[in-house]
Amino acid sequence: MARDCLFCKIIDGSIPSEKVYEDDKVVAILDINPVAPGHTLVLPREHTDDFISTPPALLAEVMPSVHAVAARVMKGVKADGFAVVVFNGRAAGQEVFHLHVHIIPRKEGDGVRLGWPKTHYADGEMAELAEKIRAAK
Amino acid sequence: MARDCLFCKIIDGSIPSEKVYEDDKVVAILDINPVAPGHTLVLPREHTDDFISTPPALLAEVMPSVHAVAARVMKGVKADGFAVVVFNGRAAGQEVFHLHVHIIPRKEGDGVRLGWPKTHYADGEMAELAEKIRAAK
Repeated sequence: MARDCLFCKIIDGSIPSEKVYEDDKVVAILDINPVAPGHTLVLPREHTDDFISTPPALLAEVMPSVHAVAARVMKGVKADGFAVVVFNGRAAGQEVFHLHVHIIPRKEGDGVRLGWPKTHYADGEMAELAEKIRAAK
Repeated sequence: MARDCLFCKIIDGSIPSEKVYEDDKVVAILDINPVAPGHTLVLPREHTDDFISTPPALLAEVMPSVHAVAARVMKGVKADGFAVVVFNGRAAGQEVFHLHVHIIPRKEGDGVRLGWPKTHYADGEMAELAEKIRAAK
């Protein structure tokens, strides 16, 4: 448990939340500012600040729990689909620095505008970026 | 390999793509309509239609690869953060029915508007939804 971590306190129960699922790896709670009704946060019990600093083996360990939560959210709110989202870093919109996975249930025609501003690459830009990523280790 | 699956054909090389990473579990390519430059798709080699139909053990298996791709994208495009996104089902915006994980690099002040329309629950609505999700198996 990390001192002064909101989600660690929610996991240990010292701050109240609306828990919807828990197992030995995670606790799942409703987001108090839902993008869509039933928007759930999956919180690994083990504190890590964010996705990139989480040991890959721990990410692997929590995925079956994320899947279990998604299945329950789908069924519980009778959703037609869902988004799984993790923000890493303030630049990406991360607000609480305890790794958490958003499960956002979606229904046909629900009007939720998860913005997804598609763009196009200029000539040569795509190949150049690909080369930079391939070269990064 | 699933017949007529765009991503299976990209994985086997019969349709060209800008590959940025591959290992025994996944192939990662640049999205041709990036939300931000360097927007990458991680494609598990094993075909499954979507997140919910993927065996949890397979989700676990590909997570170290997703982490490796995210680290390379961050470094390759000098990003300050990133979003990890999976859309499950047409209602959630899934367009290709081969499981894929979006890695979207973000920079401070990049102006990318990943819409995230926060709302509020009416009185009692949160507890009621939580109960439905807890009851779902």
